Amino acid sequence: MADTALVAIDWGTTSARAWCLDGGGGILAHRGVALGVRHVRDGNFGGALAKLLDDMPIGLAPRIACGMIGSRQGWLEVPYVDCPASLTALSDHLASISIESLSIVPGVATRDPAGVPDVMRGEETQLLGAVAPDETGVLAVLPGTHSKWARVEHGRIVDFTTFMTGELYAVLIDHSMLGRLAGHEPGLFSRGAFSQGVARGLDEGELAHDLFGARTLALSGALASDDVADWLSGLLIGREIRAAREWALRAGIDPSLVRIIGSDTLAERYDVALGDAGALAQRASRDAAALGLWRVASRARLVER
Amino acid sequence: MADTALVAIDWGTTSARAWCLDGGGGILAHRGVALGVRHVRDGNFGGALAKLLDDMPIGLAPRIACGMIGSRQGWLEVPYVDCPASLTALSDHLASISIESLSIVPGVATRDPAGVPDVMRGEETQLLGAVAPDETGVLAVLPGTHSKWARVEHGRIVDFTTFMTGELYAVLIDHSMLGRLAGHEPGLFSRGAFSQGVARGLDEGELAHDLFGARTLALSGALASDDVADWLSGLLIGREIRAAREWALRAGIDPSLVRIIGSDTLAERYDVALGDAGALAQRASRDAAALGLWRVASRARLVER
Repeated sequence: MADTALVAIDWGTTSARAWCLDGGGGILAHRGVALGVRHVRDGNFGGALAKLLDDMPIGLAPRIACGMIGSRQGWLEVPYVDCPASLTALSDHLASISIESLSIVPGVATRDPAGVPDVMRGEETQLLGAVAPDETGVLAVLPGTHSKWARVEHGRIVDFTTFMTGELYAVLIDHSMLGRLAGHEPGLFSRGAFSQGVARGLDEGELAHDLFGARTLALSGALASDDVADWLSGLLIGREIRAAREWALRAGIDPSLVRIIGSDTLAERYDVALGDAGALAQRASRDAAALGLWRVASRARLVER
Repeated sequence: MADTALVAIDWGTTSARAWCLDGGGGILAHRGVALGVRHVRDGNFGGALAKLLDDMPIGLAPRIACGMIGSRQGWLEVPYVDCPASLTALSDHLASISIESLSIVPGVATRDPAGVPDVMRGEETQLLGAVAPDETGVLAVLPGTHSKWARVEHGRIVDFTTFMTGELYAVLIDHSMLGRLAGHEPGLFSRGAFSQGVARGLDEGELAHDLFGARTLALSGALASDDVADWLSGLLIGREIRAAREWALRAGIDPSLVRIIGSDTLAERYDVALGDAGALAQRASRDAAALGLWRVASRARLVER
């Protein structure tokens, strides 16, 4: 087996993934564990790192990490790099914990038209892994608790915008009247109800009004209680897609082709919803973070090229 | 003291209010108790009614009630009357529980442009009490868990629309990251933070994005943690006002004058927010429900005129 040239780590709030990469960026080994920043006790990140890499063929290779590990709650707070943020800017602003041979990738910040700050940590690296350095005009989405849409061009994150869609869905299902209306069957994905919700979301309308509509549709029998959750999911994702497309259009980007970064069932829902919206969805590799970390490390000459 | 000509009851989900009215609709006695439909055990509405009216000078006067008491969870489910709903339509469709001399006012239903049903129970009566039968082109708001905006004209509810604003605020403060960021000081109302939120809400933007902005503003120090809750409240109310004004404009109604029906601190927030939005707010009588019940009862000839 080839030697490990780089240990790449995507270290988030709830979980961490580690890859051993060879001299060409190929994956030699991979592991994912529920050892997020949130689970590290008493600031013992060194112990957590040893546990994460335990038994992996890491050798003496340099290590690089992205994600919430570089936040105020993480190991070392790394200042954000502003948009447009290039691969070079990220590699120029790596922070390091020398004793561990660990470099940490900075997050990226921007401001929306109203001047309100927006931030990402970890997604910048996935974006630069999912989009090749020579691609132009790419619109990408990273579905999640706080879903991100980004414009990527020539290895630079030009701009991005965040939507609290996943968290909104969770609090509404767990704590609002919509959750009480929703059936508690684990149930299959109701494609029909989801697409009805997406259609509603793509339509003009205020969210606080449309949410009430889920209740009246259910009470009037037009929506089965087992379908409320999927309808709501569709509504929120549809509304996000609508807003993100307007955001892309304002920047002169064609929103009819969208790269989805993510491989879970949520990413599949975005795939369906984008289809409903008449857009073509491309799926990025599930190892986009590893490739992004490889690209940043190469640019920073942490690995030989 | 004059005899009671009508016992008027606004019977909601969480509380009930009762008034004894004289032959001219004047208030002889009033009581409010936490004896909502939700608190009535084993369907013993008769017992709850006796408790509500206990010691009030009700005599043998007829009784009339509005609100959730006429819902599926209430005493008797009264079918909705469709918009436009006039005082006459409501009085023509009273349901009654004869043994108690109790008439129940129907709720009102409409459909939004997408065909999704919208409903109210109790608010229709408050509206017809807060707006005189000879007024035209009135735009009214009833702030609450499920806030309602209505167009009222010549004693008719022409149309209305609901926003889940109050419930959205509650679930976000109690269960989302925004609540965790928010200070837990009982604190004073922060007028500045509220107005900043309102300004953001009145601006174009997608709610799921703007909600994330509360986090970044707080994390960047631009918003004090004690101010997060008021900023969020302003954002949600501002966004509702923006959508409601567009709704009114589409119907050809001037949105610069708004009647607020309600007398709690939430109503005061709408007053402030409407001022920020450049609109003039009028406050309706806190006994709008009693007057509305009197008008319906008079039209139905339950009381002599």
